Amino acid sequence: MDSVFRRVRIRSNLLRESLAECLGVYIIIVFGCGAVAQVTTSESTKGHYISINLGFALGTTFGIYVSRGVSGAHLNPAVSLSLCVLGRHPWMKLPFYIFAQVLGAFLAAATTALQYYDAIMHFSNGQLTVTGPTATAGIFATYPAEYLSLWGGFIDQVIGTGVLMVCILALGDHRNTPIPPGLAPVLVGLVVLTIGLSMGSNCGYALNPARDLGPRMYSYLAGWGDQGRGGWWWVPLVAPCVGALVGAMVYGLLIEAHHPEAGPDADTPDLCQTLDNKLALEMEGVEVDMNAPKYCPTEGQECKTT
Amino acid sequence: MDSVFRRVRIRSNLLRESLAECLGVYIIIVFGCGAVAQVTTSESTKGHYISINLGFALGTTFGIYVSRGVSGAHLNPAVSLSLCVLGRHPWMKLPFYIFAQVLGAFLAAATTALQYYDAIMHFSNGQLTVTGPTATAGIFATYPAEYLSLWGGFIDQVIGTGVLMVCILALGDHRNTPIPPGLAPVLVGLVVLTIGLSMGSNCGYALNPARDLGPRMYSYLAGWGDQGRGGWWWVPLVAPCVGALVGAMVYGLLIEAHHPEAGPDADTPDLCQTLDNKLALEMEGVEVDMNAPKYCPTEGQECKTT
Amino acid sequence: MDSVFRRVRIRSNLLRESLAECLGVYIIIVFGCGAVAQVTTSESTKGHYISINLGFALGTTFGIYVSRGVSGAHLNPAVSLSLCVLGRHPWMKLPFYIFAQVLGAFLAAATTALQYYDAIMHFSNGQLTVTGPTATAGIFATYPAEYLSLWGGFIDQVIGTGVLMVCILALGDHRNTPIPPGLAPVLVGLVVLTIGLSMGSNCGYALNPARDLGPRMYSYLAGWGDQGRGGWWWVPLVAPCVGALVGAMVYGLLIEAHHPEAGPDADTPDLCQTLDNKLALEMEGVEVDMNAPKYCPTEGQECKTT
Amino acid sequence: MDSVFRRVRIRSNLLRESLAECLGVYIIIVFGCGAVAQVTTSESTKGHYISINLGFALGTTFGIYVSRGVSGAHLNPAVSLSLCVLGRHPWMKLPFYIFAQVLGAFLAAATTALQYYDAIMHFSNGQLTVTGPTATAGIFATYPAEYLSLWGGFIDQVIGTGVLMVCILALGDHRNTPIPPGLAPVLVGLVVLTIGLSMGSNCGYALNPARDLGPRMYSYLAGWGDQGRGGWWWVPLVAPCVGALVGAMVYGLLIEAHHPEAGPDADTPDLCQTLDNKLALEMEGVEVDMNAPKYCPTEGQECKTT
Repeated sequence: MDSVFRRVRIRSNLLRESLAECLGVYIIIVFGCGAVAQVTTSESTKGHYISINLGFALGTTFGIYVSRGVSGAHLNPAVSLSLCVLGRHPWMKLPFYIFAQVLGAFLAAATTALQYYDAIMHFSNGQLTVTGPTATAGIFATYPAEYLSLWGGFIDQVIGTGVLMVCILALGDHRNTPIPPGLAPVLVGLVVLTIGLSMGSNCGYALNPARDLGPRMYSYLAGWGDQGRGGWWWVPLVAPCVGALVGAMVYGLLIEAHHPEAGPDADTPDLCQTLDNKLALEMEGVEVDMNAPKYCPTEGQECKTT
Repeated sequence: MDSVFRRVRIRSNLLRESLAECLGVYIIIVFGCGAVAQVTTSESTKGHYISINLGFALGTTFGIYVSRGVSGAHLNPAVSLSLCVLGRHPWMKLPFYIFAQVLGAFLAAATTALQYYDAIMHFSNGQLTVTGPTATAGIFATYPAEYLSLWGGFIDQVIGTGVLMVCILALGDHRNTPIPPGLAPVLVGLVVLTIGLSMGSNCGYALNPARDLGPRMYSYLAGWGDQGRGGWWWVPLVAPCVGALVGAMVYGLLIEAHHPEAGPDADTPDLCQTLDNKLALEMEGVEVDMNAPKYCPTEGQECKTT
Repeated sequence: MDSVFRRVRIRSNLLRESLAECLGVYIIIVFGCGAVAQVTTSESTKGHYISINLGFALGTTFGIYVSRGVSGAHLNPAVSLSLCVLGRHPWMKLPFYIFAQVLGAFLAAATTALQYYDAIMHFSNGQLTVTGPTATAGIFATYPAEYLSLWGGFIDQVIGTGVLMVCILALGDHRNTPIPPGLAPVLVGLVVLTIGLSMGSNCGYALNPARDLGPRMYSYLAGWGDQGRGGWWWVPLVAPCVGALVGAMVYGLLIEAHHPEAGPDADTPDLCQTLDNKLALEMEGVEVDMNAPKYCPTEGQECKTT
Repeated sequence: MDSVFRRVRIRSNLLRESLAECLGVYIIIVFGCGAVAQVTTSESTKGHYISINLGFALGTTFGIYVSRGVSGAHLNPAVSLSLCVLGRHPWMKLPFYIFAQVLGAFLAAATTALQYYDAIMHFSNGQLTVTGPTATAGIFATYPAEYLSLWGGFIDQVIGTGVLMVCILALGDHRNTPIPPGLAPVLVGLVVLTIGLSMGSNCGYALNPARDLGPRMYSYLAGWGDQGRGGWWWVPLVAPCVGALVGAMVYGLLIEAHHPEAGPDADTPDLCQTLDNKLALEMEGVEVDMNAPKYCPTEGQECKTT
């Protein structure tokens, strides 16, 4: 096996990272959309709305575990874009990350469709529809509730993604409450769970353009088409990006900006360059060399985050 | 970003702490009341009572992660007041903390109302009522069950907050069972979950005057008014304060008072002044200087809580 | 506060431990029976059977956190008895531990009855009954399903407590899979959750004589009396004791006996005498002095369990 | 007790490991099938589908805790087989492991049948059937939904086990995201939970030939026979083996093969030989001597996984 591995080894960091982002998003969607498919086609006999919340939440947790050590686990174009806007991720990498994320979501939607092919055909009598009692398009992309206005949906997604970003930034802020090393993916998954429990009923808490676009493209191509609510599709693409920036602003201006300076080396980040805080470091504009020795930049100093 | 941050940096500790308390309570309420809104307006198709329990529990967890490193994460006037009564938090800070907590809850209630505006209007046919089949006031403040007497509600809140306090104190007691560093917010969230599962049906387990007063003020001003059960509002303000003190007494007299003295330095707390036990230390009357070096007060001595 | 504490300080270890056992069991029951009361009196609108499972599971977790550092958190006469039979806990202490455990359960049942007084009266129309559609005795003690034979119930409790004991012993076995320090109470709570999910429907998974006897005595005295199924009461007292011994045998003979000897000091336990493995040590017959220095018995040797 | 243990001590590693595999699978099935029995015979009044998901998930967690330190906790013939194919587990041990795993599942099914004997007889009126409204065979083995084609079921099991393997390998990959020491069993349990929530409705997510074969043999012998769907039984035996290999390929080719080489000692694994990464090490072809000193192979070097 090792010899096979050595032969196929990719040395391009960008390609490695793109593969990891692709697999990470794949895991989120194959678990999340799988849970929707299970609840929908079993007519709630094998799960309820909370199963869907748990599916996306734990999917996020394991999507992060699968990719974090390689790509930092953005897994969301809104996150990648925010990092670029803030000057903390190279713009050059952005299209590759986004393409990989959307591709992962597309492939996962296809996997779910394959796995639930018999179930969808049986439940829908072979009619692939977006609305009506046997609609199955909701297995893939998100659709707004009937009562929801377009701006209501936009605001919903801005608030949801904003709160998500505040919590993620707090979990990664080494000068706020420390978190147990290695548990960040579980805690981020719990944030996604909470948003699903409290902000999911209006329009399905996409929070992530790739989570929505990939499966929507799949279901469009695979026969569900685009009946009804045609004007909705751009909301889960644009609103999460706005929300992520708003959330970063709120956390920055209410908490992060006011941390006391840490003495003489206040301007030099004194975090250890461990995998665990790669994302946190990038958020502060620090280049992280994943091949560098992992323990402690300053000699004789203990790692503050361990 | 860093240059922006440096320009807006607040150097007043009291103001920093107030901002953190405000954001922390905001997170609790935006998740908790959001979950109630989702269950109510979706008529239980997108969640059940346990979703509400999880919303408040995980809201508490992330409210603590967002604020603990700055303000100690009281997030509850009953906790702040108890600390002042016991001489462990300056009385001078109390009004600022309470104002920030209530403000955070008020703003979160407004956010929930904005996010669920279309849903509430659709569910209630535009009638903002406190009682009846399409009542939506319960999204914000707590209301007692119809069968509940005023004193029954008072006792319920005293017991609930008392048990909460016993568990919080045990989790923070370094001479009792140690807890994993960094997981205290999750364990406190689990306490809130358990109280919601076992003491939530009588009157909605406020346990926290700010959690109740902020949203009640919002819903009063925003058009729900104060129809019916007018005499209830003071119970979730007063009873939690009584309960917190009772709980502190019970834990102190049954467990804490009887810990064996730890030898020569029994009167000097030998805990490390880490963020993680700031609250525990304050409960023992130790001033915690958040700017001091975090590792180990006594030279050559290892941190007992790590 | 500290001066009050110093005045009431109890120096008898036995009394301290009894108080801790009493409070620990109180927490289990006030959360567990509270959850039953909530589900029963709200007619499943504020919780389902899984809420009850979670109530007892998390009650166990926090009951352990509240008492482990003082008494080792037996919290169950079947556990205390097993330890005595195995010669690992002094017989002299047994009646005190059991009395404290049953007293804690009794007081918790009384607390639940007080907290749910209005709700019980409303739900049952003031008729305190053991059977029938508005029966409320099940809030307190356990009762078998109608189809269950006495021996079926006995076997159910032996299996349930046996599996509980196997899992607890595995979690405490430092030569098997290590567990994260400080998380044992959460993992034991998860074992209780799993038993409730998979072995709860026959007769309510007492697993613990104190959990059953205390509330049964309370409900008998408080007016529910002892109508029907009179011959049941001894099963949840005797069967868990048998099951605990069977479980200890199974784990010992299948796993523990076959651990390779650890070299020259195979007979001397080389565990650190931390609070965290007090119970594990006692299970191996080691006296644990809770006042001794906590870090590392053998000089220069690192703690193997950390 | 210790003297009894010394007398029965088994020195054969293979026998010790087989006993541990047997007990580990027993725990998975006694909790998992127990949960199915509870939901089935209580007609969903004491649990829902999510209880079954939790039963198998937490069963897996505790099955791993019970056996990992002895046998590495394969607990699944598909896992054992994959390791042998990859040259990382001796073929000689394979039949013993598989026999022990199937035996554990068989004994657990018998235990569940004993514990739920009264309940099954009452629910089914004494008719042990595989199909129909009072079918109880589904308590033991897995059966496909009526709409599912044989190949649909095969693909479902390949996808499910493949995703399981990707997540397990990511959790054990020390060059990807590190996980907290001692929590691997909980995280693997969460993977099983997620698969149950999102891939359970088609044919009951066996994922594990032993989980299916043992209980199927029991129910065949105990009177349920083999009515209907006779051609199904080989799918949950073969498809998980295919899926496990596919998953290992996918993770290897997308992530593992591309990790940067770690400098001079790139070919020598520098992991500490702790219990916690025994399985991870075996996956990389390293022989792990469980009796060797546990801390750090290379002198003066810190353990990278701690």
